[in-house]
Amino acid sequence: MKKEIMEQRNVHKYEVDSFVEVEDTVATEYPLTIMVNGEEFATMVCTPEHLEELVIGFMASEGLIHFLDEVKSLQVDEGQGFAYVELTKKVHLHQEGHSKRFIGSCCGKSRQFYFQNDVRTAKTIRTETTLSVQACMDLMSNMQGTSSNFHKTGGLHNAALCTTDDLVVSYSDIGRHNALDKIYGYCLKNRISLRDKVIAFSGRISSEVLLKVSKIGVGIILSKSAPTTLALDLADDLGITTVGFIRGNRLNVYTHHNRIYES
Amino acid sequence: MKKEIMEQRNVHKYEVDSFVEVEDTVATEYPLTIMVNGEEFATMVCTPEHLEELVIGFMASEGLIHFLDEVKSLQVDEGQGFAYVELTKKVHLHQEGHSKRFIGSCCGKSRQFYFQNDVRTAKTIRTETTLSVQACMDLMSNMQGTSSNFHKTGGLHNAALCTTDDLVVSYSDIGRHNALDKIYGYCLKNRISLRDKVIAFSGRISSEVLLKVSKIGVGIILSKSAPTTLALDLADDLGITTVGFIRGNRLNVYTHHNRIYES
Repeated sequence: MKKEIMEQRNVHKYEVDSFVEVEDTVATEYPLTIMVNGEEFATMVCTPEHLEELVIGFMASEGLIHFLDEVKSLQVDEGQGFAYVELTKKVHLHQEGHSKRFIGSCCGKSRQFYFQNDVRTAKTIRTETTLSVQACMDLMSNMQGTSSNFHKTGGLHNAALCTTDDLVVSYSDIGRHNALDKIYGYCLKNRISLRDKVIAFSGRISSEVLLKVSKIGVGIILSKSAPTTLALDLADDLGITTVGFIRGNRLNVYTHHNRIYES
Repeated sequence: MKKEIMEQRNVHKYEVDSFVEVEDTVATEYPLTIMVNGEEFATMVCTPEHLEELVIGFMASEGLIHFLDEVKSLQVDEGQGFAYVELTKKVHLHQEGHSKRFIGSCCGKSRQFYFQNDVRTAKTIRTETTLSVQACMDLMSNMQGTSSNFHKTGGLHNAALCTTDDLVVSYSDIGRHNALDKIYGYCLKNRISLRDKVIAFSGRISSEVLLKVSKIGVGIILSKSAPTTLALDLADDLGITTVGFIRGNRLNVYTHHNRIYES
């Protein structure tokens, strides 16, 4: 059974001094449990589309796989909300610290890598790709153009994989990280070269967002929102250019600014 | 050492056709590790203020404590980013499923309660408190008035505990859930009666936000953003009134609408 990404709900809408009861569109929040080799790996909530990309990208983000050929089979039961994955290798889910995603230990190496898996999966980016100021603005506005009004008002986050002059693919999800995991899954499924790619993102650049970008392997992140201090420290270390507050004809470059040039 | 909630960073700012290098204010993202009875409980990232409230509220949200007297001592080492908690009881952190916060199992009872701890800590709310449409709008605008421009542009989330006609306390945090946990901690620390209270929140009403409101024990949640389907299903079940899209002189009541009346 195919799930819809939005549903109709009854709403008491107050407008012009009185209530009317109407049907309104609400974003679906869908729990998906990922079973790996017959064991429960994770339950996440997401927007129910592009679930294969999401599952592959999430497993890669968590360091469980590195290439698509490690996935022997992947079946999504959309009606029940389960994804069944068989890997070509054995994994010991609980020994590997995967359950420490948010409940993690400080690894001792660096205060900034505060989740165990991140130490293994974050990559330093050494791309020579550069981007003009005008391209930053155009890519951001193209991404926002792809999202419908519902997405804009419904609180969905958008993330787009881009070349230096166009969008490659764009995903929406109620979860900020899910939108990025869908991009990661797409890249693995389609063996996309990342050297010349850029990610445009609708939300704030937090440490988690920054780490995802590094794991995917992209050197430039564009956002209309603000970064956090920890994200900037990580971006400095990992060689990622962070461009924030892209609004109208303004933007801020926070780290590795040499990749962004005046048009 | 006191941590600042924002820091100055060098930024290459593009405005009016050229770059200038300036100092700009960036929101601090601060990792805090909570040690309970000498064992590591969780590491979270947050805005470094009101950390006692945050730690108490987070432990209560996770079902580790129910009252403040279960906390024998609480010391925060702000410089190192550790909170040391001694409880009056023994706890078995890993047996209790606390590490399953996001990596959780479906508990079998209801698909909607997809995290183990939520089953134990979510409460059905039976308040008789009602609120006028005008009060919904006023409380939301009061809350937004308490946050500085930095908070508005820096991507911090706000949550306020309110009576039916005024704010009691308002918190900001880079983490949506943290702002609510700070409210929960404040309520426990100050033995606040919740029967006549309302929560105003700047972000989207997701299932997690809704569950926090239920755990705190408040029956009305106000937001300027949208809810999700799963949040509305939970709100229906748990007796919570959800009011969304409070913007200008409009709003939507999604669940238990009888508590909101025309002014």
